[in-house]
Amino acid sequence: MTGLLSGIHSPADVRALPEAELPRLCEELREEIVSVCGRVGGHLGASLGVVELVVALHRVFHSPQDALVFDVGHQAYAHKLLTGRRERMGTLRQAEGVAPFLDPRESPHDAFAAGHACTAVSAALGMLEGWSVLGRKGHAVAIVGDGALTGGLTFEGLNNAGGAHLPLVVVLNDNQMSISANVGAIPALLRTREARAFFEGLGFTYLGPVDGHDLGALLSALREARASSRPVVVHAMTQKGRGFPPAEADLQTRGHAMGPYEWRDGKLVRSRGGQRTFSEAFATALADALAKDPRVVVVTPAMLEGSALVELKTRYPDRVHDVGIAEQHAVTFCAGLARAGARPVCAIYSTFLQRSFDQVIHDVCLTGLPVVFAVDRAGLVGADGATHQGAYDVSSLRAVPGLGLMAPVVGEDIPPMLATALAAPGPTVIRFPRGTLPSPPPELRLDEASVKGARWVLRAQAPRLTLVTLGPLALAALEAAKAEAGWSVLDARCVSPLDSEALLAAADSGHVVVVEEGSTRGGLGSAVLELYAAHGRTPRVRLMGMPDVFMPHGDARVQRAALGLDAEGMRRAGRELLGERP
Amino acid sequence: MTGLLSGIHSPADVRALPEAELPRLCEELREEIVSVCGRVGGHLGASLGVVELVVALHRVFHSPQDALVFDVGHQAYAHKLLTGRRERMGTLRQAEGVAPFLDPRESPHDAFAAGHACTAVSAALGMLEGWSVLGRKGHAVAIVGDGALTGGLTFEGLNNAGGAHLPLVVVLNDNQMSISANVGAIPALLRTREARAFFEGLGFTYLGPVDGHDLGALLSALREARASSRPVVVHAMTQKGRGFPPAEADLQTRGHAMGPYEWRDGKLVRSRGGQRTFSEAFATALADALAKDPRVVVVTPAMLEGSALVELKTRYPDRVHDVGIAEQHAVTFCAGLARAGARPVCAIYSTFLQRSFDQVIHDVCLTGLPVVFAVDRAGLVGADGATHQGAYDVSSLRAVPGLGLMAPVVGEDIPPMLATALAAPGPTVIRFPRGTLPSPPPELRLDEASVKGARWVLRAQAPRLTLVTLGPLALAALEAAKAEAGWSVLDARCVSPLDSEALLAAADSGHVVVVEEGSTRGGLGSAVLELYAAHGRTPRVRLMGMPDVFMPHGDARVQRAALGLDAEGMRRAGRELLGERP
Repeated sequence: MTGLLSGIHSPADVRALPEAELPRLCEELREEIVSVCGRVGGHLGASLGVVELVVALHRVFHSPQDALVFDVGHQAYAHKLLTGRRERMGTLRQAEGVAPFLDPRESPHDAFAAGHACTAVSAALGMLEGWSVLGRKGHAVAIVGDGALTGGLTFEGLNNAGGAHLPLVVVLNDNQMSISANVGAIPALLRTREARAFFEGLGFTYLGPVDGHDLGALLSALREARASSRPVVVHAMTQKGRGFPPAEADLQTRGHAMGPYEWRDGKLVRSRGGQRTFSEAFATALADALAKDPRVVVVTPAMLEGSALVELKTRYPDRVHDVGIAEQHAVTFCAGLARAGARPVCAIYSTFLQRSFDQVIHDVCLTGLPVVFAVDRAGLVGADGATHQGAYDVSSLRAVPGLGLMAPVVGEDIPPMLATALAAPGPTVIRFPRGTLPSPPPELRLDEASVKGARWVLRAQAPRLTLVTLGPLALAALEAAKAEAGWSVLDARCVSPLDSEALLAAADSGHVVVVEEGSTRGGLGSAVLELYAAHGRTPRVRLMGMPDVFMPHGDARVQRAALGLDAEGMRRAGRELLGERP
Repeated sequence: MTGLLSGIHSPADVRALPEAELPRLCEELREEIVSVCGRVGGHLGASLGVVELVVALHRVFHSPQDALVFDVGHQAYAHKLLTGRRERMGTLRQAEGVAPFLDPRESPHDAFAAGHACTAVSAALGMLEGWSVLGRKGHAVAIVGDGALTGGLTFEGLNNAGGAHLPLVVVLNDNQMSISANVGAIPALLRTREARAFFEGLGFTYLGPVDGHDLGALLSALREARASSRPVVVHAMTQKGRGFPPAEADLQTRGHAMGPYEWRDGKLVRSRGGQRTFSEAFATALADALAKDPRVVVVTPAMLEGSALVELKTRYPDRVHDVGIAEQHAVTFCAGLARAGARPVCAIYSTFLQRSFDQVIHDVCLTGLPVVFAVDRAGLVGADGATHQGAYDVSSLRAVPGLGLMAPVVGEDIPPMLATALAAPGPTVIRFPRGTLPSPPPELRLDEASVKGARWVLRAQAPRLTLVTLGPLALAALEAAKAEAGWSVLDARCVSPLDSEALLAAADSGHVVVVEEGSTRGGLGSAVLELYAAHGRTPRVRLMGMPDVFMPHGDARVQRAALGLDAEGMRRAGRELLGERP
């Protein structure tokens, strides 16, 4: 079934095919994408929607002399299959395997690294401008989903590109969806004849709308775009999930991201764990808060699914807001809500909150507005890899005055933590990881009402060492400490404000190992060191956490163990600090 | 001359005036703004341009029941004068005085705190939505400059507002300028008849263009907007600097920000220091780099003046890019430039780089692209106050893998530092403060070629204490240390990578005071503590820096002294750490 595809090792091979063979190539690409995603999971829907578009792009443009800058990378599987990565596609999203998104270090055909949305226009414009400065020729194409038009960075890029006089080609891959339904005025505008006026107003020549599954029409429009001496938008209408019935039938996301599955006799058999996740536990707590307090409002930047808010959105359509891929706006909108007296909860991934760093500081914290940030995917994220690691939330947010910062160990911690945050006069971050909920061990004292300060999980009678942890790592620490004499475990729980009393008590043991799933540079561990320095205390301290590199994709549990962020690693580190044999 | 104005204590008094008196009120407002700015300096141009608009807004809307959300706050002086702050306006921008921008803690008529651009639409929409959830009635008006239309956050807000069905009023204060000339396609679009189609496409009713100095037209348009049940844009054409000849004659910025001046006999007498600033020294080094290396390109997000790049832009129009108020794009555009082989230098203020935190991480550092960040206004910023403090660059950026981070002590440090950064294979931040250049003392060894690691400024023979500093603080440290026996001074110079060898040598003195102008939470001091912990070293360490609050506006030198960030403060802290009498 991969008759043509097996002969394609680079875009030159795509260009060498007779045009009549292209539909067959597209068919094989779809089969391969469905097959790969069935085995290893992945971003199926977007990739299925752009098969013809990607083939046409590689026919018309000459990568890597021309730069194909895909936004996000959800839609890049066909591109990967055509650029020499077919044989390794079975390793997609796995340790040492093909990257989940785009990475120039993996292939020269990945013109620009991506993973987050909305960067393609700016990056492609920068490349064109850079080539122009260096006197090198080449075309640059930004392939952007309509979902990314809700993101401000895309607009900043379009404004600049439309005012510049470089022949940037923007291909608008309009599948009428973001991850799920699109929101706001601009996506609606694209459905109308006003689309042309809109892009012309932005200084672009507008070509389209083109049927994104009609190869002839695509080739013709792209050739016209390539010949242009000024900025062009090619508006291609595509169908997310195209050609795979279960994706086409999935009205919510059209098969956006799927775990492994089997596709047999026209039926989809999913191999899904079904264990409850931290995201789901948070959504349950939110449901309770929405029911109890009419002031509570939930805001998500296009992550209804990821943040487990789909059902809540159905139950509270007017109080759960999907604002689109618009992280800056999500936070400032929350600030406005809080200023008006509402109690907004901004559900956002750690990696995407990086987009709103200034809004957190300037719009929320400066005047101490009571916004709750439900920061999901904090720590290792597994298969999504380097672009999505939740490594910097603690180190960046800890310095922001008046911003509370807490982390639950188990799902049972979430309701009192959310209640505490909603009752607080100022802003609070609650960070929790990707993954399934652990069971609370009997040693873990659960709070019922409000949460304050740190929590001793295990307190040795004659303490020699304290493991200070943040989030679920307390459970591995407990396991490690129970096997050693004189080891205590303190769940720091609140990074800001820090529980000085408990942490100074931890210092009494003389040896402190601080363990967190986040950068050790400026994280909880450094907060503890600052505290000890301020009090003139000098216990031996060891910091453990995410290292000073961008952690790649892989199995989070395996990575955690490799970093020593499991019971065995903590035991080893503690014994080493004590000068004992590991 | 303030006959009417002296009777205005709140917006109700504005509404009580006969309409025929309003032009006179506007005249008095202009006189008062010119007089206040002459005495204390300030953002003159934008405020002069919106006098009629602000009067009309306060006639038609009822603040604070209706929310007037001014973007940025440059244009808010007339609003301040009409809302009970007239008598205190002479204290503008000074310690304990009237705030430079907008702050609800100063007046209930400041609906939302601001200082950075582009937040008004999102905040006003959030307030409307919040009131709607709480069942409270009220109008919300976002007053936005055309400059803020180049910023993505504004677009995220407009997209969301145009798709929502709340009667948000957006007043576009179109003075055809950002701080200086506007850039890009959207500002150009506003000059054409397409403006209507553009905003209608975004889901707004469009009213205008209205002459922003015609009170009757403004009142009529605003009344129509107030009566609307759906989102409305009122497009008001204003003239920045209106009514003050020296501002009108200033083609570059129309009197955007001016230091104190005297206005006598039709002549402007400025009291300007004329001392060279760090920004100017950096621009001079950039001029040299542009001349020597054709790959060098400079990018600024609308800060040609602030970053002292006006002359360079004239000399290198194609290699110095003002991309508008678009901090995210500025950084991703640089990433594209670097990917193409150019050597981009992104000139940006510390406080505005907060807007690009994710772009620094995801677009630049993830693949180690060689972008140089010239981070101006790092540390205390003086009169601009809380919204603009450069307090978080070190603490947030230090955790980003592979990002070099350096700071010059004197202007002479800048050329070798820039050369080092431009020759580096990866990204580098060079942070420097607002203010004039100090003279290098004879003790300071100046590098000629490249910069590496820390630098001893003073090394005691029998060391008892080391002052470790970042940036110009080394000079105060030198002064402090020279007066004490056994005190050394180490200019840390590079925060990332840290000079372990020098800093471990500093620990040999047994007492280390780390002094930085930035948050002590996660900053250089905590980097030093992490290093010592990793090496099992336990000197007594004291951290000094900006405290865990938002520092208000005031004189930076006074604030520095109050925080102990001067020679006297360092001497006191050191002696205290040594257990000596202060």
